[in-house]
Amino acid sequence: MLASLREEVAAANRRLVAEGLVTLTWGNVSGIDRAQGIFAIKPSGIPYAELSAESIVLVDLEGKVVQGDLRPSSDAPTHRVLYLAFDAIGGITHTHSPFATMFAQAGRALPCLGTTHADHFLGPVPLCRALTPEEVREDYETNTGKVIAAEFAGRDPLSMPAVLQHYHAPFTWGGSAMESVDNSVALEACARLAAGSWRLGLDPLSSGLPSHLLEKHFFRKHGCAAYYGQK
Amino acid sequence: MLASLREEVAAANRRLVAEGLVTLTWGNVSGIDRAQGIFAIKPSGIPYAELSAESIVLVDLEGKVVQGDLRPSSDAPTHRVLYLAFDAIGGITHTHSPFATMFAQAGRALPCLGTTHADHFLGPVPLCRALTPEEVREDYETNTGKVIAAEFAGRDPLSMPAVLQHYHAPFTWGGSAMESVDNSVALEACARLAAGSWRLGLDPLSSGLPSHLLEKHFFRKHGCAAYYGQK
Amino acid sequence: MLASLREEVAAANRRLVAEGLVTLTWGNVSGIDRAQGIFAIKPSGIPYAELSAESIVLVDLEGKVVQGDLRPSSDAPTHRVLYLAFDAIGGITHTHSPFATMFAQAGRALPCLGTTHADHFLGPVPLCRALTPEEVREDYETNTGKVIAAEFAGRDPLSMPAVLQHYHAPFTWGGSAMESVDNSVALEACARLAAGSWRLGLDPLSSGLPSHLLEKHFFRKHGCAAYYGQK
Amino acid sequence: MLASLREEVAAANRRLVAEGLVTLTWGNVSGIDRAQGIFAIKPSGIPYAELSAESIVLVDLEGKVVQGDLRPSSDAPTHRVLYLAFDAIGGITHTHSPFATMFAQAGRALPCLGTTHADHFLGPVPLCRALTPEEVREDYETNTGKVIAAEFAGRDPLSMPAVLQHYHAPFTWGGSAMESVDNSVALEACARLAAGSWRLGLDPLSSGLPSHLLEKHFFRKHGCAAYYGQK
Repeated sequence: MLASLREEVAAANRRLVAEGLVTLTWGNVSGIDRAQGIFAIKPSGIPYAELSAESIVLVDLEGKVVQGDLRPSSDAPTHRVLYLAFDAIGGITHTHSPFATMFAQAGRALPCLGTTHADHFLGPVPLCRALTPEEVREDYETNTGKVIAAEFAGRDPLSMPAVLQHYHAPFTWGGSAMESVDNSVALEACARLAAGSWRLGLDPLSSGLPSHLLEKHFFRKHGCAAYYGQK
Repeated sequence: MLASLREEVAAANRRLVAEGLVTLTWGNVSGIDRAQGIFAIKPSGIPYAELSAESIVLVDLEGKVVQGDLRPSSDAPTHRVLYLAFDAIGGITHTHSPFATMFAQAGRALPCLGTTHADHFLGPVPLCRALTPEEVREDYETNTGKVIAAEFAGRDPLSMPAVLQHYHAPFTWGGSAMESVDNSVALEACARLAAGSWRLGLDPLSSGLPSHLLEKHFFRKHGCAAYYGQK
Repeated sequence: MLASLREEVAAANRRLVAEGLVTLTWGNVSGIDRAQGIFAIKPSGIPYAELSAESIVLVDLEGKVVQGDLRPSSDAPTHRVLYLAFDAIGGITHTHSPFATMFAQAGRALPCLGTTHADHFLGPVPLCRALTPEEVREDYETNTGKVIAAEFAGRDPLSMPAVLQHYHAPFTWGGSAMESVDNSVALEACARLAAGSWRLGLDPLSSGLPSHLLEKHFFRKHGCAAYYGQK
Repeated sequence: MLASLREEVAAANRRLVAEGLVTLTWGNVSGIDRAQGIFAIKPSGIPYAELSAESIVLVDLEGKVVQGDLRPSSDAPTHRVLYLAFDAIGGITHTHSPFATMFAQAGRALPCLGTTHADHFLGPVPLCRALTPEEVREDYETNTGKVIAAEFAGRDPLSMPAVLQHYHAPFTWGGSAMESVDNSVALEACARLAAGSWRLGLDPLSSGLPSHLLEKHFFRKHGCAAYYGQK
């Protein structure tokens, strides 16, 4: 059932290690089959090197496991809410990648300071708030998704495929599981660049990249007028 | 004698290299068999790549070598005191991993600034004091263990499986040798995150993660109500 | 056609990964055959691991693709302008390598703070300005080359084989494709050293390396009196 | 001629890459046969991966090449002066390793901030001055050795097996070629730790590790009362 999706999701999870985005088992990737309303996600607490397509768990959009012997990632309810909120996305990645997490812990959005950032994110990557004690008590992981979805109300999730949750870490998404990992890679690199630019004396309140360069770079790679790559 | 314990301890020591926690021979892991009152520890000054189960030294809780041709780690007396002080632990790791050691050298406890930290440590990782000239003269390594044990008097060592010793470096412990390495990996990652969050302008005196998130994350992974992983 | 040049350019592009200079597909190397007026360049958006000599695209100095099934790098027009402006160069590398890009984003030239820098660059690496909205609209990549060429008017590009573009990233060049990668490696290392020296309290306004050491080191490795290496 | 020395020196040079101490060809190791008064050193500008015992050059203490087809490292005259000045040493390593070089560029000695440092260096690693214009003109590499030797007049080079030269980079030495590389590894790690401890708010003017801990750690590993390792 959904063999190729599970294969891609297993490979996307293993790629987290190759890209240096994860420590221990601190991260998970999922991908969705929209026609069937089922997403495939990493099992909880399993080392990446042991992941095969067979170990990937299938979950429906009501949160029920529909295939798999292992328990899904404890973050599966967050993924579920994001798939329901963002129709256009096909994959989600959650990591605690170092530089993005430093911004989340510091309680700062990630400013757009250069064209590297603009190639992937159409503006600053937002910071969403932490959960209240009541939200934690009620349903921590589901409410995490709801807080992110509320932050993005009225925004196009594909022009801003990332968020930093205060005190926690980043989530990214994309057209597919692999694209959501690409966006995690890009987010981590941009967070590292921004931290370094500030250390070199750039005023943290500077508005960063001028808008004509931001838009040029983003739309060079995305949308109907894109001319980067082979498509 | 204790072949599987020695095998695990050899593998746990070799893992220090794979996790990037050691330089030269600056680190050692041990594991204990509580029924026999014997712990297995790295031999002193031997490169990790050369470690086999046979080279691991067995030491009893009075500090006598009971098996092994090589001299045990010079830190063996510290391990011995910690095994006597902390009944619940099954393994100990000592490294000079960079970010944890920076905090130790700076004389600062490691604050809990995010959920990554809370997943492993129930609050700030304490700093314990350096030894006095008299303690150094008397028995440096044994007294190192006593200073740590005194710092933890009345605390549960498994809810805080790490300490930073001023001017020196970290020690971590856990249910087994491998779990103590997991905690060294987590400690190093959290120290890196904390240093980075401060550089991004977070006030070093901020109290960090709110307690409702600290407790949620720690008990999501530990204790009888844990639901992370496959158990 | 130009088989050995395409082989070198493919190898030079793959080397960007080995040297840690690129993330995703954020970088490209080209090399030129001056006799034929044709340069060989990476195809756009193709992962480095998949690059063979056959996938390298040949472009003439009027910007026309003369061989290759793939679309050339979107930065090909920048390379073209630089080959026209700098007669002495045989290869160009563009990356978003982290430390060089941090300086570009911070809007700072790279000061010459030590002999490591002087071995490769005869003075501070200049910062060139970003493009205006009009220049972006007209022809972004061609105008990027023109802004760099204007910055170097009257300078010898081989004694300063690098530039940082504000908000963007570095470009380097050299006698061949491989030498332009050497200069990217050196630039990244020197940017890392400079950032670190400043963090250690060196005044960012200090003029850095005295001129007698700058000249000694540069001409020890370059020009007719060079005595470094085997030539 | 001196086959095993050349083998060790080739291996010690290749190890610079494995330890992450070198970029491009920025570093060299030598080892000496005191009985014959001949040292073996890396050839100039040759990539480390290509180094075999045969490519290592033999030089006598008057600076003449006595065996080898390649030109010796351009730093060979510095090594020669240090072998003449320091009778007890058997090997020398020169690199531009990042953190040690940051201190050299910033014009700061490396303070002893913890036991990691004390395990290898009996106090702060000194900074020696840069050469004057006249010294550069006369004989740059020979005078570099003389400035280091003057800095160490009256000191035991084996209790302080490293120096940082202002604007330049570190030199280390030891009982053999391999031990001099060990000391470069330790120096780089300690420089990284010190830079990080300062960033965490440690006062750069603090005197660092108390002397009773400095001496305990150094003499635990060195001299007749050492008890670390298997000897």
